[in-house]
Amino acid sequence: MSSTIPPLMHSATGALPERRRITGFSNPTVKFIRSLREKKHRRREQRFLAEGLRLLTDARECGRVPEMLVLAETREPHPLIAALERAVVDAGGDVIETSPDILTKITGKDNPQAVAGVFAEWDTTLDAIDRSSANIWLVAQALRDPGNLGTMLRTGDALGAGGLILIDDCADPFSVEAVRASMGAVFTQKLAQTRWEDFAAWLRRSDKGAPAQLVAASLREAVPYRGAPYAAPCFVLVGNESQGLPEEYEAECDLRVTMPMRGRADSLNAAVAAAVLGYEVLAGLEAAQR
Amino acid sequence: MSSTIPPLMHSATGALPERRRITGFSNPTVKFIRSLREKKHRRREQRFLAEGLRLLTDARECGRVPEMLVLAETREPHPLIAALERAVVDAGGDVIETSPDILTKITGKDNPQAVAGVFAEWDTTLDAIDRSSANIWLVAQALRDPGNLGTMLRTGDALGAGGLILIDDCADPFSVEAVRASMGAVFTQKLAQTRWEDFAAWLRRSDKGAPAQLVAASLREAVPYRGAPYAAPCFVLVGNESQGLPEEYEAECDLRVTMPMRGRADSLNAAVAAAVLGYEVLAGLEAAQR
Repeated sequence: MSSTIPPLMHSATGALPERRRITGFSNPTVKFIRSLREKKHRRREQRFLAEGLRLLTDARECGRVPEMLVLAETREPHPLIAALERAVVDAGGDVIETSPDILTKITGKDNPQAVAGVFAEWDTTLDAIDRSSANIWLVAQALRDPGNLGTMLRTGDALGAGGLILIDDCADPFSVEAVRASMGAVFTQKLAQTRWEDFAAWLRRSDKGAPAQLVAASLREAVPYRGAPYAAPCFVLVGNESQGLPEEYEAECDLRVTMPMRGRADSLNAAVAAAVLGYEVLAGLEAAQR
Repeated sequence: MSSTIPPLMHSATGALPERRRITGFSNPTVKFIRSLREKKHRRREQRFLAEGLRLLTDARECGRVPEMLVLAETREPHPLIAALERAVVDAGGDVIETSPDILTKITGKDNPQAVAGVFAEWDTTLDAIDRSSANIWLVAQALRDPGNLGTMLRTGDALGAGGLILIDDCADPFSVEAVRASMGAVFTQKLAQTRWEDFAAWLRRSDKGAPAQLVAASLREAVPYRGAPYAAPCFVLVGNESQGLPEEYEAECDLRVTMPMRGRADSLNAAVAAAVLGYEVLAGLEAAQR
């Protein structure tokens, strides 16, 4: 894989400095990090950007340590920042100090948080998913809004779901907006990106674990979502924000459920639908276990 | 109220044209409409912008007709556009035809929809709320994200809620982003904007209808949200995205409930929490009626 990550600049003494300081806006490392706000650069570099002490601490506690840690010179000392620095240095990574202005340029935010990190992306093939490891999985088809995608990751964490499977052309789960909306769940939830045909085939393979149940909200031949016969591992499927699910995807579902629509609209926001249905599945599965 | 709305330009013949055509980017009407993307201008003009045939049709069917209707010259003929034009002309409004480029400038979107409208804002004091008119009301405190706010309006419509009450400094419900995320529910749900003290006093006034129940998700002295004793009219309160609810607001609640948090996080996205809790309230109230 080709990469344009700038090499570490060693100090004049030849020793590897624990921190290096960047003061120039045109520094290649600044340009590199900043470029990760765009999908094409993330794709080429297989790296992404995450911001904020809480997010980076969540990552560290889940065993995800950034390759580069960027700190504002103006930060207050903090034990969690020290822990991050230690983890990055121990893993052979790079700690960079810079000005708030340059951090603003990197993150594109007027009030950047004092800490940002560059992470290597990880395996997001279906091989990353062990369906027996959780009772609930969320599945999104052609979900275009990165905020919705991040919110689904966050909801998945709250549900104790195993992860999120992205079908067809979804927003990038490693975009700054999705990572931020996930509130750290991008580091705790498993992620897979695949096509419908491959997902459907994988779902029905008996060597991949217990038989899976695929559930979607639907207006066609559906039962009420409340108290429906959910079974683990249960895969909760939501469709594209404006088109909904293709009819043939709905037809593949083991269970189609309806949610009350008491107003003029016939649908919920995709991340909201996943959450309302996901919490009903959780209640159903936990009641069955008692 | 002072206003900078440009006057209708009558044609040279003195007749009021049913449509006027705008071809210049610097036309004052273009500038006026475009300015409504900013809160300070919306506030001054007491007007807002909504885009898209579906949204404007929802508005019309709810009795909300734009003062100005802007159409792309390149649009396809459509009976719903014709119905909108008729409604605007009947109400004494202004129909404007313009180029896709100018629509792009107005809406700030690369692919603007072929229709946009300028609406007068309406009464959003607590007087707009008749609590007896619905069993569920959503309440948001210091909600900062306009997408979350619009999503709550959309969820309220689906729940058959009466409306959304905004407490303290919330995002503007008439922002383009909130209107869009509401999927038309900004026109169907009642809206109030108020301060906590006024809301709390209003809630307890016996001359405003049946005793209200105020419910919030909480980590303090709470009962499980599933099957909790909800009672109509039930007001579902969610707090600011990063701070949550102030402790004294929680203390004012008649019912505090907990939702399962099976992962690392201790909270859900605010719009998601409102929806999961709102659907549980709906199920509880409907079961009690049977």
